[in-house]
Amino acid sequence: MNLRGVGVSPGFGHGPAYVLSVSVPEPPEGATYTGEAEQEKERAITALTRVAGELEARGHRAGGEAEEILVAQALMAEDPGLVVRVRSLIERGLAAPRAVYEAFARYREVLAGSGGYLGERAADLDDVRDRVIAVLYGIAMPSLQGAPAEPYVLVARDLAPADTALLVREHVAAFVTEEGGPTSHTAILARALGVPAVVACPGATAIRPGARVLADGTSGEVRVEPAEADVAEAVSANAVRRAAYAQAEGPGRTSDGHPVPLLANIGGPAELDAAVAAGAEGVGLYRTEFLFMNRTEAPTAEEQAPAYREAARAFPGGKVIVRTLDAGADKALAFLPVPPEPNPALGERGVRVFRRFPQVMEAQLDALAAAGDLMVMAPMVATAEEAEWFTRACRSRGIVQAGVMIEVPSAALRAGDLLSAVDFVSIGTNDLSQYAFAADRQLGAVSALQDPWQPALLDLVALTATAAREAGKACGICGESAADPAMACVLVGLGATTLSMGAGALPAVRAALAAHTFDECRLAAEAARDAVTAVEARAAARAYLPALGRLGV
Amino acid sequence: MNLRGVGVSPGFGHGPAYVLSVSVPEPPEGATYTGEAEQEKERAITALTRVAGELEARGHRAGGEAEEILVAQALMAEDPGLVVRVRSLIERGLAAPRAVYEAFARYREVLAGSGGYLGERAADLDDVRDRVIAVLYGIAMPSLQGAPAEPYVLVARDLAPADTALLVREHVAAFVTEEGGPTSHTAILARALGVPAVVACPGATAIRPGARVLADGTSGEVRVEPAEADVAEAVSANAVRRAAYAQAEGPGRTSDGHPVPLLANIGGPAELDAAVAAGAEGVGLYRTEFLFMNRTEAPTAEEQAPAYREAARAFPGGKVIVRTLDAGADKALAFLPVPPEPNPALGERGVRVFRRFPQVMEAQLDALAAAGDLMVMAPMVATAEEAEWFTRACRSRGIVQAGVMIEVPSAALRAGDLLSAVDFVSIGTNDLSQYAFAADRQLGAVSALQDPWQPALLDLVALTATAAREAGKACGICGESAADPAMACVLVGLGATTLSMGAGALPAVRAALAAHTFDECRLAAEAARDAVTAVEARAAARAYLPALGRLGV
Repeated sequence: MNLRGVGVSPGFGHGPAYVLSVSVPEPPEGATYTGEAEQEKERAITALTRVAGELEARGHRAGGEAEEILVAQALMAEDPGLVVRVRSLIERGLAAPRAVYEAFARYREVLAGSGGYLGERAADLDDVRDRVIAVLYGIAMPSLQGAPAEPYVLVARDLAPADTALLVREHVAAFVTEEGGPTSHTAILARALGVPAVVACPGATAIRPGARVLADGTSGEVRVEPAEADVAEAVSANAVRRAAYAQAEGPGRTSDGHPVPLLANIGGPAELDAAVAAGAEGVGLYRTEFLFMNRTEAPTAEEQAPAYREAARAFPGGKVIVRTLDAGADKALAFLPVPPEPNPALGERGVRVFRRFPQVMEAQLDALAAAGDLMVMAPMVATAEEAEWFTRACRSRGIVQAGVMIEVPSAALRAGDLLSAVDFVSIGTNDLSQYAFAADRQLGAVSALQDPWQPALLDLVALTATAAREAGKACGICGESAADPAMACVLVGLGATTLSMGAGALPAVRAALAAHTFDECRLAAEAARDAVTAVEARAAARAYLPALGRLGV
Repeated sequence: MNLRGVGVSPGFGHGPAYVLSVSVPEPPEGATYTGEAEQEKERAITALTRVAGELEARGHRAGGEAEEILVAQALMAEDPGLVVRVRSLIERGLAAPRAVYEAFARYREVLAGSGGYLGERAADLDDVRDRVIAVLYGIAMPSLQGAPAEPYVLVARDLAPADTALLVREHVAAFVTEEGGPTSHTAILARALGVPAVVACPGATAIRPGARVLADGTSGEVRVEPAEADVAEAVSANAVRRAAYAQAEGPGRTSDGHPVPLLANIGGPAELDAAVAAGAEGVGLYRTEFLFMNRTEAPTAEEQAPAYREAARAFPGGKVIVRTLDAGADKALAFLPVPPEPNPALGERGVRVFRRFPQVMEAQLDALAAAGDLMVMAPMVATAEEAEWFTRACRSRGIVQAGVMIEVPSAALRAGDLLSAVDFVSIGTNDLSQYAFAADRQLGAVSALQDPWQPALLDLVALTATAAREAGKACGICGESAADPAMACVLVGLGATTLSMGAGALPAVRAALAAHTFDECRLAAEAARDAVTAVEARAAARAYLPALGRLGV
């Protein structure tokens, strides 16, 4: 059996399928219980409490962003309103699973509001509900604990943070998911780990658990019970690729010597070792909000400085670009609260929040100034006025190199104006794409619009890079698309001066650049921009990048 | 006393201040009641029911979009979970007002979800809460019923649909609000009615009720108890302006005869008379979703056709551009449901919903084909592929002229590609601005970014209009900015071929165009695009449009 999806992290992965599937049935309508109401209520409350406890414990073990999400889910399971409703439905005669089902449905409605709007966390809520019902029915919940000892191909509908929080990189040969797009959680995780991955692969969860699977993270092909010869070919292709990666050591550059420093995206000092080991030449995006996810009080400059100093020390002489706190939207910080917003992604997030809390910005800038020779940039800048405001704040706190993220279309359109106010820019392709196409990054239904090969997105990158070249200033890329080896070549061709990505993606990108000339990159970029659709753009670019096939990327 | 805000609808308005303010105090923490718990509960439930009934009745009287919003608010007041909580808080000893206050706070938290996200309707919820507490305290709720008989200046923090649903145009001399921006509900309403308006005017609600107020909807100046001479001057300026409007009759054109058909935005056949009376030359934007806000089942082609036929008959020989159903985000249609979305404005809305419900699109296209010689366009198109898909659907149902809205930045960037697939385009500046600046139209906190004079927005208009001229196809503007006389001249200078707006704005725009040459418009457009900030762009453009001052716009 062959399936086909979208390859989002290159390489071949081979092993037994470990299918992470939950199929929790809807408890029958009107289901009743025998026995005492109080006992049934007790059973329901115990299940809710157990699921909350499990989610919280898993969160604490995982830490970081995953912890935040899992603890929020745990709170849902223990919501007092939900508990009251479950009890009252059981009182009226409904069996515990059905009562839980209906109470969650009502909770979801409330979340959704009555104006046609729907709360963000409704999908997470379904996950919590299914876990509680599974406990009541005695169904095993998805977990990586029963996974095979040999490296397996992890197959799922989609991977949630709860699934992958405790994943061990060495145990996973590849990811295959039915849903998700190039910027989904699965894709980002796979590239960060350097594990081959295929997403948007219909039929994947129907693969028999334990069946041998061969996944091609480049072409998107997924073979079930492949021929021995195909496996041998894949193993050999992997070996060729690894050899090519190993050969392409040292600083990033094209085959004709055009330098493109390759940097790492990090969320804290814990990730510095992996970045150094993967040959990163610096940090292109330090996501500082992840340092303080669990804080309720704003961190002082003294508390912050060590985490920044470590990054500066890890890359003496290399670039270290720190992004100031990017709160808001999907990354709420308790010490930077904003009022309710109908569309958080279009609201007070990034640098906009600093207008409301200038003292928090000042403390962070002081910490950065104290930590060493860092480049500092602000997220979500939309206009030259905002860029000027941020640069003035940086200068006044002793920071020499001030920049901005280009992730709002207006900033790319007016990159020249913004560059007059800053020392450097860095393009965040994920958000830029989200806004340019009005297509939520988190939403599978609009994932075709989030394809980084969309020509309009390449136009915005070109506008920015051209303006930067004319201003004689640096234009880095720190969005997910830099982690795709073919796209990395195109971005260099469009004028990107540095590329930053998860450390796991560095070897493939370094090898792809080293295998092509700067002119090939430029021709590939032109060909991509001449195309009308994303599919055409990718094909047109690859035609100018002949060595990609040999590298298996 | 002089105040200053932002003028968003031109002209002078003069009259006694009618201050629409609610100042419902927070019921004291721990407030208790004397008497029986059951009586206190009864009191609370009665207040909740009464407010729900009032909101619903007001909605039904208003109809249309306002009805939708008000009925949703009514549902909030009767939410079963809320009622249960109010009763239980009273049971625990809290007085009814405090119990209502705390129950709403909890409801709001639930709406907000636990992941840091906040339900869209939280602000509406506060309005409902205040109304209930006002009933319990016996405080009069804001209402236009006690308004003066002579035309008054309506002053408010901001105008909610509930406030303005039953407003009579003749009774209002001007609007002055403390909050809101150029695309706020107040601004849109004022321009549609042709009433002068000043928004974002700090201190407005401190104006003594009944004080004489002179508001300048152009400069944004608001004088309290103005000198007689100033009033006389304003009256005379209004007369001059009205004379100029009257003089500029007939089809829209510049002073040197460059034709710019002036069209009306409508939401249903009821608005056709006003459009014809104001001299509209056709319909530039027929918002068909407003026809079916209350439907639970999709309307058949037969049900729809009459509403479209009436528009075609009202403008024989004129353009009538109909937008297909623009469901989603802030305009939910029960028969086009989409799953929960974290950011509805970046989700499945506009044409995207038709991918899920092609039969609804087909019924609408059939109705439009049957109704006469209409131009049909799709909202929220982001790529050339989507434009091709929609055009194919139109052609296959017998529609000759198929177009798309340009309201997503990617569509403007790739306007040339899209124009290859369609017969015409129409720019929706409101949404285009929302996405280009990643700044929610509904959110006051980011309103500076929604300024239609932002140069990056003008860049996107210019890209689109230039591509349309090269393709020899029409490029209309149907966003709010077309209703601003100065901006209208700039849009024509950028290459817009038609302008569409609320009927009330037509006379001022017609007069402004008739007072300037096409070259003046072009120079104004160039000057605006050469500017770096919105304020500079507006000033630079006005310097090339000398007659605006004489017209008082």
